[in-house]
Amino acid sequence: MKVLILGGGGVIGQKLAQSLALRGELRGKELTKIVLADIVTPAPVSAPFPVETTTCDIANPASVTACIDADTDVIYVLAAIVSSHAEEDFDLGYKINMTGTINVLERARALGTKPVVVFTSSLAVFGGEVPDPIVDHTLLNPQSSYGTQKAIGELLLTDYSRKGFIDGRGFRLPTISVRPGKPNRAASSFMSSILREPLNGQEAVCPVEEDFLHYYLSPRKCVENLIKGAELAEEDLGQNRNMMMPGKIWSVRQLIDAMTAVVGLEPAKLIRWEADAAIQYIVKGWRFDQAPKKSIKLGLTADDSFEDNIRYYLEDDKPSA
Amino acid sequence: MKVLILGGGGVIGQKLAQSLALRGELRGKELTKIVLADIVTPAPVSAPFPVETTTCDIANPASVTACIDADTDVIYVLAAIVSSHAEEDFDLGYKINMTGTINVLERARALGTKPVVVFTSSLAVFGGEVPDPIVDHTLLNPQSSYGTQKAIGELLLTDYSRKGFIDGRGFRLPTISVRPGKPNRAASSFMSSILREPLNGQEAVCPVEEDFLHYYLSPRKCVENLIKGAELAEEDLGQNRNMMMPGKIWSVRQLIDAMTAVVGLEPAKLIRWEADAAIQYIVKGWRFDQAPKKSIKLGLTADDSFEDNIRYYLEDDKPSA
Ligand SMILES: NC(=O)c1ccc[n+]([C@@H]2O[C@H](COP(=O)([O-])OP(=O)(O)OC[C@H]3O[C@@H](n4cnc5c(N)ncnc54)[C@H](O)[C@@H]3O)[C@@H](O)[C@H]2O)c1
Ligand SMILES: NC(=O)c1ccc[n+]([C@@H]2O[C@H](COP(=O)([O-])OP(=O)(O)OC[C@H]3O[C@@H](n4cnc5c(N)ncnc54)[C@H](O)[C@@H]3O)[C@@H](O)[C@H]2O)c1
Repeated sequence: MKVLILGGGGVIGQKLAQSLALRGELRGKELTKIVLADIVTPAPVSAPFPVETTTCDIANPASVTACIDADTDVIYVLAAIVSSHAEEDFDLGYKINMTGTINVLERARALGTKPVVVFTSSLAVFGGEVPDPIVDHTLLNPQSSYGTQKAIGELLLTDYSRKGFIDGRGFRLPTISVRPGKPNRAASSFMSSILREPLNGQEAVCPVEEDFLHYYLSPRKCVENLIKGAELAEEDLGQNRNMMMPGKIWSVRQLIDAMTAVVGLEPAKLIRWEADAAIQYIVKGWRFDQAPKKSIKLGLTADDSFEDNIRYYLEDDKPSA
Repeated sequence: MKVLILGGGGVIGQKLAQSLALRGELRGKELTKIVLADIVTPAPVSAPFPVETTTCDIANPASVTACIDADTDVIYVLAAIVSSHAEEDFDLGYKINMTGTINVLERARALGTKPVVVFTSSLAVFGGEVPDPIVDHTLLNPQSSYGTQKAIGELLLTDYSRKGFIDGRGFRLPTISVRPGKPNRAASSFMSSILREPLNGQEAVCPVEEDFLHYYLSPRKCVENLIKGAELAEEDLGQNRNMMMPGKIWSVRQLIDAMTAVVGLEPAKLIRWEADAAIQYIVKGWRFDQAPKKSIKLGLTADDSFEDNIRYYLEDDKPSA
């Protein structure tokens, strides 16, 4: 069983590789190789079997051809540029997030080996004039180029699967928190940094009010779901291969209270509250009221409590002093 | 006001051009030119202003560039291959119906003139596990490559409009009946031919039972709606630029009764009933129970009776003996 992770240098890609390395098997078969491919060479991941790191630009068909071969059983398509980046650079967003996905699907089709393809969509496909709650048959109505590119990826995943070219599974990720690393250019960046920075003893800025609600999942659960996602039986997926990945709705206040419950009162004092109209404008357009049924029925799960998300960060990601 | 009709040699394109020629104006401005572009040179249409006919392959960016210039105010994107053709030839379907649409949008964007772009989507974007009736916020859940390509076109139309590159309007056409001309390879072909052939004194085969329900619109109303569609004020369209074009639900029995009501008992006797499992399998997967609100609120309309559709065929299309 050979697994390729496109975007394998990213946050989810690295955690997925680490989790697969520990697990040693996927879809009932022993893992013999993981290939981590990214636009820059990914950090190595140690495992009891070979883990190759390589560069691959999914926007370049020849590069995609070079990294997907007939032995590749499972392909995770995590490579993407984030929402604000895709919004600022229209051409690059379409080139990577749309054409890049097409390049992967076309390569799989050309091989004729029908690999399992796990695609990461986003809650950014939802928005605008659709009623709450968001359900499995709600219109994908993206309000950004990033969301549009993800919605197109979903449509193609289903059509290529229907034709038997791939065995696709797409998951609309909730916002992942607590996300390790540095703040990024995503408008959602604060949803991790108001916890991560204080947990690391640093200041953070919260640009929204404490009653701001959103839909979250921990990186650990996300990876668990992506592994389950690859293991689902094809016949259980239904014709549309995409579904919401379960998350939980929490307010900023609940996030901070969870942090306090786990580590005490001090970290929360490092949060400065500075309303930011530009960020509020974007994040208040997002839809948090999601009621997935399909993915839950198939065994995917959300976190039990945000205290868990805090603990996972401390266990998995907090830099040692 | 210069109008370009891509797919201008097709059934709707020709009727649209004829209707615009009679009308002489669009969006409150005098028409000065219509360009009919198609993969084969379209039939000429006479008008009190120049009507140019030209070849253009929308799958070819250079060809698209050559036929869309900075003077083009309104672009109708009707060029497409039909569902069964796109299903049989996967590459050609994506090349024309998806990449072709992208080529048009990219050319408009490069010009920077923000033309009005009227896109013809289809009820084939609906299907599968979505509840009846189909409403404005129902998931696009295509069951075919053709439907997938149309759904992608819709998403792009909205995103390019949101960015201000075009002023897009997309309409999901019901099945057009009575469609003039010859039977084609579409599974829906019989929905016109069981009327058209008998009205022309020829035999026709009906492959479904008489209680088969579907969602229809006459070519005349379709053209009327496409003209209204170009004239809608941009600010009334909402963020998602696509909507169902209104139609009416009728059974095959009602279609035939309407024909009998208009022309008497003889033509209906020319219909042979021969169940066809393959055709039934496809057409029974289609969703006829549509309840559009947005397009009706904006002033688009359906036919009052199928008797009208029969009369329009006799007036507009029946070949003279
Ligand atoms: N983290 C979230 O909150 C979230 C939410 C919704 C969806 N997603 C999606 O999940 C996936 C993984 O997210 P993540 O948090 O790990 O993001 P990330 O930014 O950490 O990882 C994405 C990786 O893709 C790589 N990449 C970018 N362009 C590439 C190209 N042309 N070729 C190859 N690789 C390229 C980047 O270098 C990066 O390492 C992404 O597709 C993202 O859109 C994430
Ligand atoms: N008629 C219907 O029932 C119906 C229903 C839903 C949607 N639609 C859509 O409405 C539009 C018009 O439909 P129609 O009934 O006039 O179809 P049609 O087949 O009569 O016309 C389509 C035209 O597009 C042209 N074309 C094909 N490939 C081309 C290319 N590469 N470059 C340029 N032109 C190309 C064809 O030559 C044809 O003249 C199509 O987009 C169709 O998908 C029609």
